Amino acid sequence: MRVIGIDPGLRNTGFGVVEVKDTKLTYLSSGVISTSQHDSLPERLKVILDSISSIINDTKPQVASIEKVFVNVNPQSTLLLGQARGTTISACVLNNLSVVEYTALQIKQSVVGYGHADKLQIAKMTRYLLNLNGIPKQDAADALAAALTHIHYTKICSFFNMSSVRGGRLIQ
Amino acid sequence: MRVIGIDPGLRNTGFGVVEVKDTKLTYLSSGVISTSQHDSLPERLKVILDSISSIINDTKPQVASIEKVFVNVNPQSTLLLGQARGTTISACVLNNLSVVEYTALQIKQSVVGYGHADKLQIAKMTRYLLNLNGIPKQDAADALAAALTHIHYTKICSFFNMSSVRGGRLIQ
Repeated sequence: MRVIGIDPGLRNTGFGVVEVKDTKLTYLSSGVISTSQHDSLPERLKVILDSISSIINDTKPQVASIEKVFVNVNPQSTLLLGQARGTTISACVLNNLSVVEYTALQIKQSVVGYGHADKLQIAKMTRYLLNLNGIPKQDAADALAAALTHIHYTKICSFFNMSSVRGGRLIQ
Repeated sequence: MRVIGIDPGLRNTGFGVVEVKDTKLTYLSSGVISTSQHDSLPERLKVILDSISSIINDTKPQVASIEKVFVNVNPQSTLLLGQARGTTISACVLNNLSVVEYTALQIKQSVVGYGHADKLQIAKMTRYLLNLNGIPKQDAADALAAALTHIHYTKICSFFNMSSVRGGRLIQ
């Protein structure tokens, strides 16, 4: 199974592609898509849409794993994040990927084993689990962590003979 | 010039396509795309994405005109609206449409001539301007009003010899 994790944002969208075969994890790709504040909203969303589509075409994942967000303190930021998130999910469904969502708590518990882990702990654990040469950038690390969470939940499903994971919940 | 107006929303997305030749306005199509609350977010966004793409393919507009939204009182609704809006803009840029945005005030002033016009006044004026048999549904009327606003602003641009309208503002 090949999973793309995505951490959407209008300014920076992190992505990370991980493959799992039996119990072996392989890191394939990760990075950050950045858009310019000088461009219009449609131009910025087009950059995100085209980049995610191109990464999906290059790396051929079957599933996209995205962090479930809660609303921001700043309503304008919430709207901007929502638009970037809608665009990211659009790129995934356009490329026939199934999309699963996990809360920040589920991601932290999966990757670090501790629900209150900080950003640096997540980045360090993705480096360790994927045997990377260095600590990935924050948005890329968060995206890799989302991908690893889906792999983790899928293993749990298979172990407990559950049929699927939907929205981060186990469904029998 | 053929313009698609869109009023995005996760539950209901209104659309309306209008053509202008010289000073003659022709109504081409309008309606509301509805998604089910029982479906997952990616499934609902896929319905919006596919429907808008299909309408664009059928009616071949060159420009999309979308109401610029301000944040909702409910942050969760703002996030949902943002995701629907991001998906709508994705469908437009995917189909190579340029996207323009107008504030609610600009739309009301363009269509009704009065910035505090209510929803019913907007619907009645779209019916009158486009010579429709009946009053369109609210979301479809709002979308038609957004399309009419872009036609109106484009006429003003041409009259004052302005080069373009960007984000609802005149640019010399």
